[in-house]
Amino acid sequence: MTAKNKITVKRNAQPKEKPATDQLAFGTVFTDHMFVMDYTEGTGWHDARIVPYEPFMLDPAAIVLHYGQTVFEGLKAYVTDDKEVVLFRPDENMKRLNRSNERLCMPNFDEELMLDALKELVSLDKEWIPDREGTSLYIRPFIFATQPYLGVAPSKTYRLMIILSPVGAYYKEGMNPVKIAVESEFVRAAVGGTGSAKTAGNYAGAMKAQEVAEAAGYSQVLWLDAKEHKYIEEVGAMNVFFKINGEVITPSLNGSILEGITRKSVIELLQSWGFPVTERKVSIQEIFDANAAGTLEEAFGTGTAAVISPMGELSWGDEKCEINGNQIGELSLKLYETITGIQTGRVEDPFNWVVKVD
Amino acid sequence: MTAKNKITVKRNAQPKEKPATDQLAFGTVFTDHMFVMDYTEGTGWHDARIVPYEPFMLDPAAIVLHYGQTVFEGLKAYVTDDKEVVLFRPDENMKRLNRSNERLCMPNFDEELMLDALKELVSLDKEWIPDREGTSLYIRPFIFATQPYLGVAPSKTYRLMIILSPVGAYYKEGMNPVKIAVESEFVRAAVGGTGSAKTAGNYAGAMKAQEVAEAAGYSQVLWLDAKEHKYIEEVGAMNVFFKINGEVITPSLNGSILEGITRKSVIELLQSWGFPVTERKVSIQEIFDANAAGTLEEAFGTGTAAVISPMGELSWGDEKCEINGNQIGELSLKLYETITGIQTGRVEDPFNWVVKVD
Ligand SMILES: Cc1ncc(COP(=O)(O)O)c(C=O)c1O
Ligand SMILES: Cc1ncc(COP(=O)(O)O)c(C=O)c1O
Repeated sequence: MTAKNKITVKRNAQPKEKPATDQLAFGTVFTDHMFVMDYTEGTGWHDARIVPYEPFMLDPAAIVLHYGQTVFEGLKAYVTDDKEVVLFRPDENMKRLNRSNERLCMPNFDEELMLDALKELVSLDKEWIPDREGTSLYIRPFIFATQPYLGVAPSKTYRLMIILSPVGAYYKEGMNPVKIAVESEFVRAAVGGTGSAKTAGNYAGAMKAQEVAEAAGYSQVLWLDAKEHKYIEEVGAMNVFFKINGEVITPSLNGSILEGITRKSVIELLQSWGFPVTERKVSIQEIFDANAAGTLEEAFGTGTAAVISPMGELSWGDEKCEINGNQIGELSLKLYETITGIQTGRVEDPFNWVVKVD
Repeated sequence: MTAKNKITVKRNAQPKEKPATDQLAFGTVFTDHMFVMDYTEGTGWHDARIVPYEPFMLDPAAIVLHYGQTVFEGLKAYVTDDKEVVLFRPDENMKRLNRSNERLCMPNFDEELMLDALKELVSLDKEWIPDREGTSLYIRPFIFATQPYLGVAPSKTYRLMIILSPVGAYYKEGMNPVKIAVESEFVRAAVGGTGSAKTAGNYAGAMKAQEVAEAAGYSQVLWLDAKEHKYIEEVGAMNVFFKINGEVITPSLNGSILEGITRKSVIELLQSWGFPVTERKVSIQEIFDANAAGTLEEAFGTGTAAVISPMGELSWGDEKCEINGNQIGELSLKLYETITGIQTGRVEDPFNWVVKVD
């Protein structure tokens, strides 16, 4: 770490009360500190600092408010059964954040410095990490354009922040298969667009479809491709896998799909188990056909929030299909238990996915 | 206006120095005041107020920074030859802003109140409106999600702001045809996405293509459709028109194109002149074919910033086409002079497009 990159720390003199761990929701409560770093064209990233969590001043003309030049990441810190604090593949999140930067014409950062910052911040606020089964500390690094300028052009100044939020268990009443609506009107991302970057606009655009699906009793939408409305892309903000006739298949990374870290981990795990996994185009018709033929064995989403989310029912226009009798599949459960087991230290970590904070 | 909707005014006690009108750029300098109004679920819009222009406090977890839930508008105030201050079709901007709100799951506002707010704010800062030929006061209304929440869902709180920026003439050295690169890799918007809304993510995603085109010596990109990469959508942040064999054609509003107010005005003007205008799909091949056949007479972009921007050269992969000998077309010029004439009061306004501020 160069002198310029040293992280200064200003402790919060008024620490907040921590919420009860059985009352935790997602993303509503924030810890006592945050990491901040600024970028100025010509100077680069500077003033890396940990400061009390608090609102900050933004110019009304800041580019982020108008043109959405911003990228983010999401990962978690867990307390293991041995009371150690660990992160799950944080290097992958930092790499993806820099890839998102590239797509959005934003400046790269030093991944080593950021990993240090993550660890230092989490360590400082480690009392905030809940330790009930399934709970964790959600970590949100994000970078946004701050220059007050109304021309549509990359900003000359940016701010990078990391904020932390203690979150409750995703499966409060145990894992449950969910009902998914195949989206036939709205599109999340197109090849040539920003779908493979973790950037704000993808999520703003997705809210409408989610709203419509929820009103109709579904928990998420399944996105089809922008070109033909035939091929499966993702489910909500998760990647998606199907087990058909003993083979696991997942849509290949075509440029409009986010390269999920849970997706990558699932593929690597399955391969290590000698399980056949294929990344290729998957049409929604193929899934309904497989289900009709009795060969669709399991379907599940993957993402940092839920880890594995089994799909119990798919609705596509007038057609419906129930998957695996609306039960959690064997492989879905094994993947869930292995990954969460690695995260909590209950299961061996042959890939060195887990990174200790202290 | 109800009592709840009354606009309070807090004057700026430290007015800034105004920039020299021959030094003005675009969107870098802001006036002394801004309009602000807040939205809270359950209460609706409240606290409409004009206050000094200044930075404001935002929570690091505000939804706009992460998921880009934000919409905006752009219009201008002009000083007429009679020293009156006027707006050009501001009701159209307010309608479009509410349509954008709808797509982004954001709350509608009262368009009457907003028109009052626009006028009151512009009137208060009218000393800031430059009156040199071609200059104007750019008006930027925008609305963004403020709730501190990391779940991907519509915010329960919003802020609406209007800021003002004196801008120089778009054509400082007279109108000049520009070189345009047809974009073959990146995509601005897909049908089913957010292209027809004026929302941040569309602009963030477009920066990369613009950067590449600029580096290659082009001033803007021409966007093709996301599905087939065949049909013309827009040029940079402008709508686009072609005159072929005496007929004016423009891409129809297919869901991924922004419904430009200059576009609408051009169509209405041409129709009033008895000029044939057709809204339909236009392929890039058709334009190159027409040019080869000698029937492509003019091509121009339309938007609030430039009003009319003639295209002099199109580059598409290895092919290039020069349009109208790289000269400004007759119709382009007539449209430009008529619209800017109406805006400055030099030309009669048979459509009542112009709205007086005082
Ligand atoms: C759109 C989208 N797809 C997929 C994922 C899953 O990625 P990961 O497994 O890295 O959490 C996410 C984020 O979590 C996402 O936002
Ligand atoms: C993407 C895009 N297309 C077209 C236009 C032209 O619209 P208008 O004529 O209303 O300015 C704009 C904005 O000005 C725009 O942002």
